Amino acid sequence: MIRVGVVDTSFARVDMGRAAEEEIKRLTTKLKVVRRTVPGIKDLAVECKVLIEREGCEACMALGMPGRDEKDKLSALVASYGIMMAQLMTGKHILEVFVHEEEAESEAELVELCRMRAKEHARNLVRMLLHPEDMLRLAGTGQREGFPDVGSAKKLR
Amino acid sequence: MIRVGVVDTSFARVDMGRAAEEEIKRLTTKLKVVRRTVPGIKDLAVECKVLIEREGCEACMALGMPGRDEKDKLSALVASYGIMMAQLMTGKHILEVFVHEEEAESEAELVELCRMRAKEHARNLVRMLLHPEDMLRLAGTGQREGFPDVGSAKKLR
Amino acid sequence: MIRVGVVDTSFARVDMGRAAEEEIKRLTTKLKVVRRTVPGIKDLAVECKVLIEREGCEACMALGMPGRDEKDKLSALVASYGIMMAQLMTGKHILEVFVHEEEAESEAELVELCRMRAKEHARNLVRMLLHPEDMLRLAGTGQREGFPDVGSAKKLR
Amino acid sequence: MIRVGVVDTSFARVDMGRAAEEEIKRLTTKLKVVRRTVPGIKDLAVECKVLIEREGCEACMALGMPGRDEKDKLSALVASYGIMMAQLMTGKHILEVFVHEEEAESEAELVELCRMRAKEHARNLVRMLLHPEDMLRLAGTGQREGFPDVGSAKKLR
Amino acid sequence: MIRVGVVDTSFARVDMGRAAEEEIKRLTTKLKVVRRTVPGIKDLAVECKVLIEREGCEACMALGMPGRDEKDKLSALVASYGIMMAQLMTGKHILEVFVHEEEAESEAELVELCRMRAKEHARNLVRMLLHPEDMLRLAGTGQREGFPDVGSAKKLR
Repeated sequence: MIRVGVVDTSFARVDMGRAAEEEIKRLTTKLKVVRRTVPGIKDLAVECKVLIEREGCEACMALGMPGRDEKDKLSALVASYGIMMAQLMTGKHILEVFVHEEEAESEAELVELCRMRAKEHARNLVRMLLHPEDMLRLAGTGQREGFPDVGSAKKLR
Repeated sequence: MIRVGVVDTSFARVDMGRAAEEEIKRLTTKLKVVRRTVPGIKDLAVECKVLIEREGCEACMALGMPGRDEKDKLSALVASYGIMMAQLMTGKHILEVFVHEEEAESEAELVELCRMRAKEHARNLVRMLLHPEDMLRLAGTGQREGFPDVGSAKKLR
Repeated sequence: MIRVGVVDTSFARVDMGRAAEEEIKRLTTKLKVVRRTVPGIKDLAVECKVLIEREGCEACMALGMPGRDEKDKLSALVASYGIMMAQLMTGKHILEVFVHEEEAESEAELVELCRMRAKEHARNLVRMLLHPEDMLRLAGTGQREGFPDVGSAKKLR
Repeated sequence: MIRVGVVDTSFARVDMGRAAEEEIKRLTTKLKVVRRTVPGIKDLAVECKVLIEREGCEACMALGMPGRDEKDKLSALVASYGIMMAQLMTGKHILEVFVHEEEAESEAELVELCRMRAKEHARNLVRMLLHPEDMLRLAGTGQREGFPDVGSAKKLR
Repeated sequence: MIRVGVVDTSFARVDMGRAAEEEIKRLTTKLKVVRRTVPGIKDLAVECKVLIEREGCEACMALGMPGRDEKDKLSALVASYGIMMAQLMTGKHILEVFVHEEEAESEAELVELCRMRAKEHARNLVRMLLHPEDMLRLAGTGQREGFPDVGSAKKLR
């Protein structure tokens, strides 16, 4: 079985890691999920790197929920930058699954958005590892994780 | 044959990778294109690095379409930073070909801009790998990929 | 005993390192705290890296207090970025514990906030090193260090 | 002869590389200039790194002209960050010579500014490689490349 | 004798390096100062790295004066980021001593501020290398280099 890491945070207000894990298990029996929880989004990158290098994970999902303030946006930038560096240092994909609090207008919407985005990225992870040819077919098709897809732009007839 | 990577995204609304591949094939038979599609622009850098290090690509094109929101701009910054680091870690060129949605005023314009920019950067890639002396001749000539070139600035007579 | 580093600054207006150290000692006898003080937040990252690589620390806390001005925010960004890189280079967690001056409305509040945040992150550190399974149970529960927890978002019934 | 790299772009509207090369040749016969042209400013860093590591250059000049838009400013930031990393990875100086389009009010002014800045940085390069003691004498003297020097600040008598 | 690097710029309008060197010599005979001057703040990081790796310096001071414009602030960010990376790559402290032009209201004030900040950071350097226990005593005491210290925040009695 191919091992994949799913790392989320205690800061987030929705259990995004569980949504991701459930979807991976629903889609395939070929991946084994390794779960970790860290305090905040800036702790995700190193945890993913450790899962790849010491736990043999082939890819990871890094799930988190940046806050609304200006300083939260800078935190998200640094967290995101760390996930980028962890990918380049390991040569493995780490899908960043962030939901900004202000993307949803109510708590109920937030729960739904977090779960949907986590699940759709779980599907991306499964595709990338097991069916990379399916990714090619989606090139330029305007996929949106957690929201309705926008589709390809139409050219003038 | 020299291998080159062409990586695009399922988030983009135009099939930029195909436009790039077609142009490369139209211009030369000396390059072999390796295609990959990843979910979003922050997944481009590690995929290009893998294509260079494990698939023997001599250079890559990383094509994507950042969204309009403030957080999309920060994503573009991180994606761009990752492409930069991937170049420095591998010592190979990765041409970043991004089209920001707001650069075009209609869907039809967006399609046209994406294809033109992808093609013109495909031409840059071919020049850099096969005819580097042609690049020298273009120094300071105000080339603009996807839009009309602006040309050299005129000095006072 | 597992060694952990606690690094704070002479720039901060509250002795955050002491609060962290006291809390670690109160919670467990299995961790040995190594203390360091540096001038400002941009000196934290390298000090933590040295504690991990040369003093055998398994994890660190980096405590500081960014100022109010625009240029202080850029300093915080660079400091934070450095802590991120130090984690990725060492493969160890470094918990960033920053209190922005404007988060509190009075000096007394500032003292209280700094101590509470330092203590709650000390608890995170102890959990991560000694009881990682406890972190998993906190996934998505809206923990806030130094402020009251906000809890999980409620879905519609 | 000591080899130095001069890398410019086809995006720029002034042939900055030529101005730099001419000035280096006018000032000394001890340096051999290696020229390269890349598409845009984000392609400069890796080209300079290659010139240092594979072509034996002792230092480089990276010349470019960032555009006016917000996204151009982020490109300049990434380009600049890449030049910084290339310096740290090679242990060699790479002088960044950027002229922002809005620094000049007319095309004629732009041409003049680009040439002057390129030449004055060429002088810096020559000094750093051949007469480092001359740099020490300029410490704190308010040098401005491409514009009149502002000089040292005056203390109260 | 322990070697320390002091690097400043020809862009700055005050001879900050000299102020730093004089203060180090006034405070101790155990440190040997190695001076370098580079053109601007983005050239400081690699010079410090070279001083550490090839000249055997145990620590460095990087002194500079960022300008007022938006693009100067981005330059300061990149310069600062480079100093951070140089520290992490070498495992040695490099104290960043920047004075932003707008921190002072007159040239005379600027001269005074630059000198004071350089001197107070020179004192930090001496403490860190020769009396690290003195740094611990300053934890959370609100030190401000170049301005009056603000002291510890007072808790409610």
